[in-house]
Amino acid sequence: MNAYEIIMKKRDGGKLSPEEIAFMVNGFTAAKIPDYQMAAWMMAVFIRGMDSPETTALTKTMLDSGDRIDLSAIKAVKVDKHSTGGVGDKVSLVLAPLVAALGVPVPMMSGRGLGHTGGTLDKLEAIPGFRVSLSEEEFIKQVSEIGVAIIGQTRKLAPADARMYALRDVTATVDSIPLIAGSIMSKKLAAGPDAFVFDVKTGRGAFMRTFEMAEEMAKTLVDIAVLSGKNARALITDMNQPLGNTAGNALEITETIACLRGRGPKDLMTVTLEIAGMMLEMGGAATDIAEGRKMAQKAIADGRALAKFRAMVEAQGGNPACLDDPSLLGKAGKQLEIRADYPGWIQEIDALEMGMICVSLGAGRARAEDALDMTAGIVFAKKVGDRVGPGDLILTIHHNLDDAAGEADRCRAAVRIGDSPGPERPIIHKIVDKTGVHPYF
Amino acid sequence: MNAYEIIMKKRDGGKLSPEEIAFMVNGFTAAKIPDYQMAAWMMAVFIRGMDSPETTALTKTMLDSGDRIDLSAIKAVKVDKHSTGGVGDKVSLVLAPLVAALGVPVPMMSGRGLGHTGGTLDKLEAIPGFRVSLSEEEFIKQVSEIGVAIIGQTRKLAPADARMYALRDVTATVDSIPLIAGSIMSKKLAAGPDAFVFDVKTGRGAFMRTFEMAEEMAKTLVDIAVLSGKNARALITDMNQPLGNTAGNALEITETIACLRGRGPKDLMTVTLEIAGMMLEMGGAATDIAEGRKMAQKAIADGRALAKFRAMVEAQGGNPACLDDPSLLGKAGKQLEIRADYPGWIQEIDALEMGMICVSLGAGRARAEDALDMTAGIVFAKKVGDRVGPGDLILTIHHNLDDAAGEADRCRAAVRIGDSPGPERPIIHKIVDKTGVHPYF
Repeated sequence: MNAYEIIMKKRDGGKLSPEEIAFMVNGFTAAKIPDYQMAAWMMAVFIRGMDSPETTALTKTMLDSGDRIDLSAIKAVKVDKHSTGGVGDKVSLVLAPLVAALGVPVPMMSGRGLGHTGGTLDKLEAIPGFRVSLSEEEFIKQVSEIGVAIIGQTRKLAPADARMYALRDVTATVDSIPLIAGSIMSKKLAAGPDAFVFDVKTGRGAFMRTFEMAEEMAKTLVDIAVLSGKNARALITDMNQPLGNTAGNALEITETIACLRGRGPKDLMTVTLEIAGMMLEMGGAATDIAEGRKMAQKAIADGRALAKFRAMVEAQGGNPACLDDPSLLGKAGKQLEIRADYPGWIQEIDALEMGMICVSLGAGRARAEDALDMTAGIVFAKKVGDRVGPGDLILTIHHNLDDAAGEADRCRAAVRIGDSPGPERPIIHKIVDKTGVHPYF
Repeated sequence: MNAYEIIMKKRDGGKLSPEEIAFMVNGFTAAKIPDYQMAAWMMAVFIRGMDSPETTALTKTMLDSGDRIDLSAIKAVKVDKHSTGGVGDKVSLVLAPLVAALGVPVPMMSGRGLGHTGGTLDKLEAIPGFRVSLSEEEFIKQVSEIGVAIIGQTRKLAPADARMYALRDVTATVDSIPLIAGSIMSKKLAAGPDAFVFDVKTGRGAFMRTFEMAEEMAKTLVDIAVLSGKNARALITDMNQPLGNTAGNALEITETIACLRGRGPKDLMTVTLEIAGMMLEMGGAATDIAEGRKMAQKAIADGRALAKFRAMVEAQGGNPACLDDPSLLGKAGKQLEIRADYPGWIQEIDALEMGMICVSLGAGRARAEDALDMTAGIVFAKKVGDRVGPGDLILTIHHNLDDAAGEADRCRAAVRIGDSPGPERPIIHKIVDKTGVHPYF
């Protein structure tokens, strides 16, 4: 077996064996296969694709390159959730304590924001004192004791992924479904849960711009999980406009608290409750998704979900007083309101552009090493389908810049007002499980 | 303009501008673009392809990376010939002096053998004293004075090609028509001729295994030449069995001398005379190909072609006595005859396998740095379509190995004897010019 022949085989559209995939990934990770051969191979993978058994083998090799967290001491069925990323996506923050409050442990490893998408870890760090870098032992202990922890990926998990990602990032091989799926799943499997729900976003503000790509990604993620012996489901959800009413770190924590107090916006809560229903059903706490959804609504209404969030914040060193007084999260020095110039209906709020404006405001990162302004962001007073009159508030920019006139102009251009409400836009498009893709009712 | 975006554009099947292609090739040659980005780009080029304007831009950039030989002092139309390589292909050795003898200068830069294919330079070096590494000045002077020279490529021509080839060789991006065509044509154009004939081989022993690939290569080479302002034609010729009756360096020089004395085998002479006809027509010495072909036959019959070969050998330091007494080329220590076990007709002599057996005998190279045994090789007593009786000689292996029993077994397996002559197999399949692909009659 040699790298040249494996590159050639994939180049010509062949299917690679698990041994051939392991030879490339392990050889590269051990610096025995040079960058240029790996780059040629990954380009061939990008263009020719990989089927589910190949992608599962890739995932397994990357998984085997590092440690695994052993959660076997926690006897319950542990369920994790992963989102492919979007703008205003704070589902995990509401969901994890909500599901844990109903007895299903949620050991969650999340990521940071990059480009137009925000990151769960960044948002949590808007809570003063919150620590996302627990040790493996602390992570296991916390999930065991309070049923939920949200932490960053440790360097010991799937080290092959970090090396491969660095090379993909400079060779235009990032947006490949098998390579993305392998990267996600190697780390997710290493964290030790028994079942997964994947929230695959599609639309302007998503990595999967087209519905077809989102469907392929959802099927791939479910296939890898199932072929790895785990239970899994996926939802394909809309990311044409930002999710919920806020984008920006502290602003999203404030919205999270509102959700947990039963005052969450409709689109965000629809997605959150559906995923909660799935996780509760997969975790054995509910007999079906509908029952799980109702249980979740009740746990919000009676305060159990917020109490679990409080327990998690306390356990990870955050100031729990923020939950009672979100002004403790801080507020940007300046607010700039964008109002409607003429009457009509909001027909579009461009999620990609809103995400890029957040980067410009300091709420997101252009590069991985950029520092964040936790208080910066955008609060949406209107959403797609809402009616506006002249002078009505559409959104408020929160910032600490000398001048945000450019960002304000971009916000105005990113919102389209038309003379009708436009078509109904569902927030959940499809449900994917191991039997295939299903409509959502 | 940046490498990432250019890689991405080709990855997605886009057409690159001449500026984008120059950015990649020049950046890589100047070590500003790293190996891994070039490898990813070349894999994208391999899979997605390039059209003729892109391939011409690639060729021009590679050409501009080095010197050009200025043959403008030689006022005649200078015509070069290039073969894509095969087994027993000594056409250039017969052709170059033949065409030059009729007044059309032939400035030829040739290559070495690698893998199953032989190389013109290696064959010439079987003549004691023959020098293939002339300086540019010596090359121009010799073409000017005697009308023909066959030399190796100098390092100053198209240095981008050498760097790119080294990377292609380890990233499975060698067999790409645009990359091969760019590599060939950048060096051919740098050598300064006005017109080209391309002999594109197809079949078992050729790089273009399928007829479709050969046709695409022929069209690409002609397109690049024409788009570069040169006259060009191509032939698609058969390489399923070795060409002529010998494979091996000194053995092929002996056969070349026989051809120039009017005793050449039919397949080899058909190809040689057709190309000679084209070159004489393009060089203005004949009014059409048919007339050129007849002129070439006459120049062989009356000894002018052999005299020109003698002049070239003398000018490049070779011992001209070899032309009168080929035994001066040396002879392998051992001869091993392969004879027919049963009667029938020769239906196949596998050119690829015969080429690989030559490598095993020391007549060819597995790696570029391998030394050659100039006397080793194979002499074919029979060709495809010939009738054999039991015990008839099929071929003789010439070698200096301790034991060539393995090679003898492989030769036997590579020759197939059937109970009919099999279908007629043309040696010239098609003719390609700037107007398209034409049948050959």
